[in-house]
Amino acid sequence: MTDLILALDFGGTKHTAGVVARGERQWRARRSAPAQAGGTAADDRAVMRTLAREVLGGERPAAVGVSFGGPVDYDTGTVRLSHHVPGWEDVPLARLLSEEYGAPAWMDNDANVAALGEHRFGAGQGCDSLLYVTVSTGVGGGWVLNGQIWRGQDGMAGEIGHTVVDPAGPLCLCGKRGCVERMASGPYLAQDARDRLAAEPERGAALLAQAGGDPAALDARHVAAAAAQGDALALELLRGVGHALGVGLGNAANLMNPQRFILGGGVTKAGEIFWQAMWAAARATALPEVRLEIVPAGLIDDAPLWGAVALAQADGLNGRHR
Amino acid sequence: MTDLILALDFGGTKHTAGVVARGERQWRARRSAPAQAGGTAADDRAVMRTLAREVLGGERPAAVGVSFGGPVDYDTGTVRLSHHVPGWEDVPLARLLSEEYGAPAWMDNDANVAALGEHRFGAGQGCDSLLYVTVSTGVGGGWVLNGQIWRGQDGMAGEIGHTVVDPAGPLCLCGKRGCVERMASGPYLAQDARDRLAAEPERGAALLAQAGGDPAALDARHVAAAAAQGDALALELLRGVGHALGVGLGNAANLMNPQRFILGGGVTKAGEIFWQAMWAAARATALPEVRLEIVPAGLIDDAPLWGAVALAQADGLNGRHR
Repeated sequence: MTDLILALDFGGTKHTAGVVARGERQWRARRSAPAQAGGTAADDRAVMRTLAREVLGGERPAAVGVSFGGPVDYDTGTVRLSHHVPGWEDVPLARLLSEEYGAPAWMDNDANVAALGEHRFGAGQGCDSLLYVTVSTGVGGGWVLNGQIWRGQDGMAGEIGHTVVDPAGPLCLCGKRGCVERMASGPYLAQDARDRLAAEPERGAALLAQAGGDPAALDARHVAAAAAQGDALALELLRGVGHALGVGLGNAANLMNPQRFILGGGVTKAGEIFWQAMWAAARATALPEVRLEIVPAGLIDDAPLWGAVALAQADGLNGRHR
Repeated sequence: MTDLILALDFGGTKHTAGVVARGERQWRARRSAPAQAGGTAADDRAVMRTLAREVLGGERPAAVGVSFGGPVDYDTGTVRLSHHVPGWEDVPLARLLSEEYGAPAWMDNDANVAALGEHRFGAGQGCDSLLYVTVSTGVGGGWVLNGQIWRGQDGMAGEIGHTVVDPAGPLCLCGKRGCVERMASGPYLAQDARDRLAAEPERGAALLAQAGGDPAALDARHVAAAAAQGDALALELLRGVGHALGVGLGNAANLMNPQRFILGGGVTKAGEIFWQAMWAAARATALPEVRLEIVPAGLIDDAPLWGAVALAQADGLNGRHR
């Protein structure tokens, strides 16, 4: 009887497979490959099959855990769709993988799986309740309550990115105004920076320099870099991002009063200016009686893969089988 | 061995005691009395002692459940304070009652207890996860998740009243702007109505008539009544209340995706205009994939008392004893 857990992370731009022995905290093997540009679900699966073969090295896993970068139905182990890659509609991925590897397989979306990963192996260890929030191309979140993923009735829990923090704010792709995702995600920050550059060119020299003189090339990292140098416009933009996220976190703290918030994703690497603005807004929004702890993610980009390990172990222990 | 549950509801204006046999759904006896105006915690306890004696009729309870209208520490069974009555600071009420009646006693704040009451006996029956919200002199809330009260790390979970839905909105007593409580509670609605009457007297005839010509007498019920008659200013005010609450509920739906929201409290009796505005905003705020069910409370003012029964039964079954 093998003791190996196979962990798979289907990401938007990159796929990763890892193998770890049950109860261990170091990868036996771990391998990544970029997603094929313009590819389909079948291409994603072929890339992942190769990675899994490499990390398994001829052995069979005892269980498979999967993080998927898009909405899934946890109960049936089915991918609903991918926002990036065609062909993923209603694919019963957990069952297919279970047949492929002759082992039970469990799958959840990347935010939920990353939350579980941080809880078991990262910045949420020893913590009974937490909200993990990733601020990146979008803003996603996952809850761990009483040590278990809280999914809600439709598997949609954790969507802090689409809570409204400013009804007079700019329009989000979801149709609402002032969602956390619209106010704090990387691409929208870049878009706002470009709009401000166009509207106030006299304030934009430092930002423009960061982007090599090309406004179209401007991204969130350039804003962070210019803010770190003290540029007024960049500071304003980055503080706005931190503030919006902080209001969203403070609202979530009042609603759920979890032990800890864990922040991951590229935007949260924007430095002290971002963290200070976020903290000030979160603390001002949460009631004084609500204790607040907000920490950076511990596993960084590995949270989904470690979460997949935890998912396979936890649900395997519960005796559930797919 | 007695089979009776003694349920006590310490309210801001009224105290109630009830006795029910374990597993039954009808009161053996139930009695209320007004809280003594200008009284202290000792007065509240004396009133309740009399009520309890009357409903017990000489019998001894097997367990005691308590709803308290203010912040409590559930784990130690201690009242933190009352916002209405002096002398409640740090009173170990559960232990005192347990000694008094020779039976285990459990206590939680009224919003949590009412949520549990609706879950076991009211509009939340058969529902695995719900948020109960009372919109009255304040806006409070309580979660039931996986069939249990979710309290959060500080017992503060459910504070939807102090989530911000409009950062440009009016100032709340808590120091923030545009909290749900500031936008939707009864006294603030009355205050806003009086302010609008003063600012736009030419639009205020219907509202003023409801209040018998005295702006100072205007309360939330008058606004609801004038809105029901089609008065433009009252409609605007009442729709604003519904909208703000709806945004708060929609945000909570995205964050937690519970099966059901249950609304109680005087303001939720304001009629169809309020419910329609609330629903439209909640549905527009929640993501399309998030199913939304919002229903009126089933137990009305009896939710805390039935919740106290459920608290005593549930925690008794868990074998916890105080």
